[in-house]
Amino acid sequence: MTATGVPDTGSATLEAVLAGLAASSPALADTGRSDRAAALRAVADALDAATDELVDVAVRETWLPVPRLAGEVARTSGQLRMFADGLVEGSFLDVVIDPADAAATPVPRPDLRRMQVPLGPVLVFAASNFPFAFSVAGGDTASALAASCPVVVKAHPGHPETSVRTAEVVRAAWEGAGMPAATFALITGEQAGVEALRDPRITAAGFTGSLHGGATLYRIAAARDVPIPFYAEMGSLNPTFVTPGAVRARGAEIAAGFVTSFTLGVGQFCTKPGLLFLPRGHGLDDALARGVGGVAPARMLHERIRSGHDAVRAELAALPGMRVVAAVDGDPGDGGRAGATLLATDLATLLADRERVLPECFGPTSVLVEYAGMDEVLAAARAFGGNLTATVHAEDDEVELVRPLVRELRDRAGRIVWNGWPTGVAVSWAMHHGGPWPATSAPLHTSVGMTAIRRFLRPVTYQDVPAALLDEALQDRNVAQIPRRLDGRLSSEDLAGA
Amino acid sequence: MTATGVPDTGSATLEAVLAGLAASSPALADTGRSDRAAALRAVADALDAATDELVDVAVRETWLPVPRLAGEVARTSGQLRMFADGLVEGSFLDVVIDPADAAATPVPRPDLRRMQVPLGPVLVFAASNFPFAFSVAGGDTASALAASCPVVVKAHPGHPETSVRTAEVVRAAWEGAGMPAATFALITGEQAGVEALRDPRITAAGFTGSLHGGATLYRIAAARDVPIPFYAEMGSLNPTFVTPGAVRARGAEIAAGFVTSFTLGVGQFCTKPGLLFLPRGHGLDDALARGVGGVAPARMLHERIRSGHDAVRAELAALPGMRVVAAVDGDPGDGGRAGATLLATDLATLLADRERVLPECFGPTSVLVEYAGMDEVLAAARAFGGNLTATVHAEDDEVELVRPLVRELRDRAGRIVWNGWPTGVAVSWAMHHGGPWPATSAPLHTSVGMTAIRRFLRPVTYQDVPAALLDEALQDRNVAQIPRRLDGRLSSEDLAGA
Repeated sequence: MTATGVPDTGSATLEAVLAGLAASSPALADTGRSDRAAALRAVADALDAATDELVDVAVRETWLPVPRLAGEVARTSGQLRMFADGLVEGSFLDVVIDPADAAATPVPRPDLRRMQVPLGPVLVFAASNFPFAFSVAGGDTASALAASCPVVVKAHPGHPETSVRTAEVVRAAWEGAGMPAATFALITGEQAGVEALRDPRITAAGFTGSLHGGATLYRIAAARDVPIPFYAEMGSLNPTFVTPGAVRARGAEIAAGFVTSFTLGVGQFCTKPGLLFLPRGHGLDDALARGVGGVAPARMLHERIRSGHDAVRAELAALPGMRVVAAVDGDPGDGGRAGATLLATDLATLLADRERVLPECFGPTSVLVEYAGMDEVLAAARAFGGNLTATVHAEDDEVELVRPLVRELRDRAGRIVWNGWPTGVAVSWAMHHGGPWPATSAPLHTSVGMTAIRRFLRPVTYQDVPAALLDEALQDRNVAQIPRRLDGRLSSEDLAGA
Repeated sequence: MTATGVPDTGSATLEAVLAGLAASSPALADTGRSDRAAALRAVADALDAATDELVDVAVRETWLPVPRLAGEVARTSGQLRMFADGLVEGSFLDVVIDPADAAATPVPRPDLRRMQVPLGPVLVFAASNFPFAFSVAGGDTASALAASCPVVVKAHPGHPETSVRTAEVVRAAWEGAGMPAATFALITGEQAGVEALRDPRITAAGFTGSLHGGATLYRIAAARDVPIPFYAEMGSLNPTFVTPGAVRARGAEIAAGFVTSFTLGVGQFCTKPGLLFLPRGHGLDDALARGVGGVAPARMLHERIRSGHDAVRAELAALPGMRVVAAVDGDPGDGGRAGATLLATDLATLLADRERVLPECFGPTSVLVEYAGMDEVLAAARAFGGNLTATVHAEDDEVELVRPLVRELRDRAGRIVWNGWPTGVAVSWAMHHGGPWPATSAPLHTSVGMTAIRRFLRPVTYQDVPAALLDEALQDRNVAQIPRRLDGRLSSEDLAGA
């Protein structure tokens, strides 16, 4: 039982949930794309209709401001509608048809028809920092349901009532739209989450949270008798590089933008820029200090998160070679408020203490690194592991100067941002919210955007199977006009002769 | 040092190989698609030209017959040419462009352009049973090189000289075609393989072999400080189901086809049908026994493999409820020859002893399961874990009878074969050679066919990045006519306004 009165899920309840998921999995897999799309839209509509009520609960549990939370509900319903659109469009099925070819060498080729099918029941570990968009009805849930996978969400303990209420809205709308019962459930408590992860009926899991939490669960998933895909998004340093030309042209603007970005949501975004590289002698200390000084201390998601942030900040500030550019005092009283802090150091300190400087500091603290030239910038870039994003601020005439940097960043980041800020993740086809470890546990996949659905699908090929046993998407006639690959070429047409 | 005189790779050599791979990785990543395609074709041509010499060595090391080995070299060069074609076509880059949209809600959308980039150095564990097509120059190597990933192959100890000679041919042709030096290497020895797998410079690994070997290496990969994708293809039972109607219509033909399939290559195919479900009273015992009796004992890849097969066969034959339909005596002398064996049992025995009956028996032994009705067939299908393939033999008027079975098989197999045999894996776009654990460690991926390249690529999104810093594939003008997704729609056209 949490302090808020939401009890942890017991073993008997968990067993019923998992049995229900497994039993209903074939029925959900056999729903039609348009029916599933309609159900996702019904969930989106229900969330929109419940916005005020959901935000009321979430404000109390997370201390995030109302406009931010209301916007996040809109983002959440928008994601559901994007997946609904994607279901109708149909290319996620990745249909490939190679007609029989008696002349193929070294042996004749049979008729081969391939499409994506759902993996099965999916476990989602909800995030703390986005109580809607990466939580109960967030991107992991939306993409798994779109893929026809039943979902059990392990609620984040930071917003239990928000989770329960959201789950009620989702389930009522989902089942009300005709989706099979027992295909969506919520569980609470760390033990229930780990038990579910170990359960053979769970076929994949998604996670958004800390490196420690994600890595621990990843290893549990890998140690199962039957290991399963575990998609963890574990946050990121999101280094940002500013050229001398950009400082000269718009240094004050960059300073202001940076402070806004790293303190947005009290620095609790996985895309928070945690490192800003500025050329030595940048002259922006005052502008940066003014910016930081203007950020009011704010409550973080939880008192434990605030005290953790303050401890890491103190440790960073105490490193030899680190100076404080600006620090707003926090306030441990009244649940605790975190003050924004900007530290500064040089490349030598960064590299010498990389195990302390390079992990993510969750909260409104960032580190300025003053570099002597592009060689130092490249050396810094090569020191990074995986990052969700990397950002470059440069002028048009500096393209050749930063070309080697952009090339290095490509090997380490999931998204490269030019003259902007990494906070703000568009939900679209081209978005990639991922990256090599430790940004995520699965570098091939994104947790945001339409292609997030790929995480919960696997291919099946039918060889010479009669049309009567094939899905509509694999028929000669492409009634639904799905984009397909026919005999090696992309097409929405019927198979020749159909 | 192996008995054949190929020394194991020592630590110093391994270090040089890995350092070379890491250092050359960016240069390989920056090669053009058409240059890489030309290099893959050069490797294919060189292998074809060396066929006689390579086959001579392989015959001595593997005991596989000359026509089979020569055909396998042709398959290997064919795979390389398929990836070359795929590089030119370009859809593997998975280009997605979402133009900026100032009217997007809840926030304006920046310009987002996404494409696939290589993961980095790849380690390939070669297979024993396909000394060419799944070995040094096999599908894992071909797909990784096509993806611009440098490759180090850990040779299978079953054919060390074949491996060394193949590697020489590959490297000479690859580098001769202008690909960067040190982007392809061979290592030998179990210790070198495990050391390489643990090395932080390796970013992904492929494997073809046994469940025991694959699972062990999978867990090593997952236990690294930085876990990496580990693509293991670990073999399969490949259950085959025959309906009463099919028995009536063509029982003798099915019996003959089954014996040919399960004894092909001395039963050393990962797609060998290890279980044949026949209706009780099928009356095919004599036909099956005649077929098995006509298969001459043959040398397996290695004496250890033969003795392992004979031990599993003896254990299966000794199970209560198991009878011997036909057994050809093997011959332990002269390197050992394995005789074909067909056992038979019923569903109760299969399910009661599933831990002994359901693992793969590598070699020319298969088990007949006599079923009482479709309910038993469905119960059996539900008992399976992942399989590379599942096969159904049925008549046209039995489609409704087998519909539930085909549906169950879809959730457990990577490929469903109708009225054919699973041995024989076409190399094409629509092929899926994969499946849920224990068939593979990565159910989303195939190790055969064009889409095998996806295993070694990850997405990167460029946000508002100037055209001068973008790959040709991401430009407004689609000079190379690559299939792309523009603003959500598939197209090979230029971006509007370009």
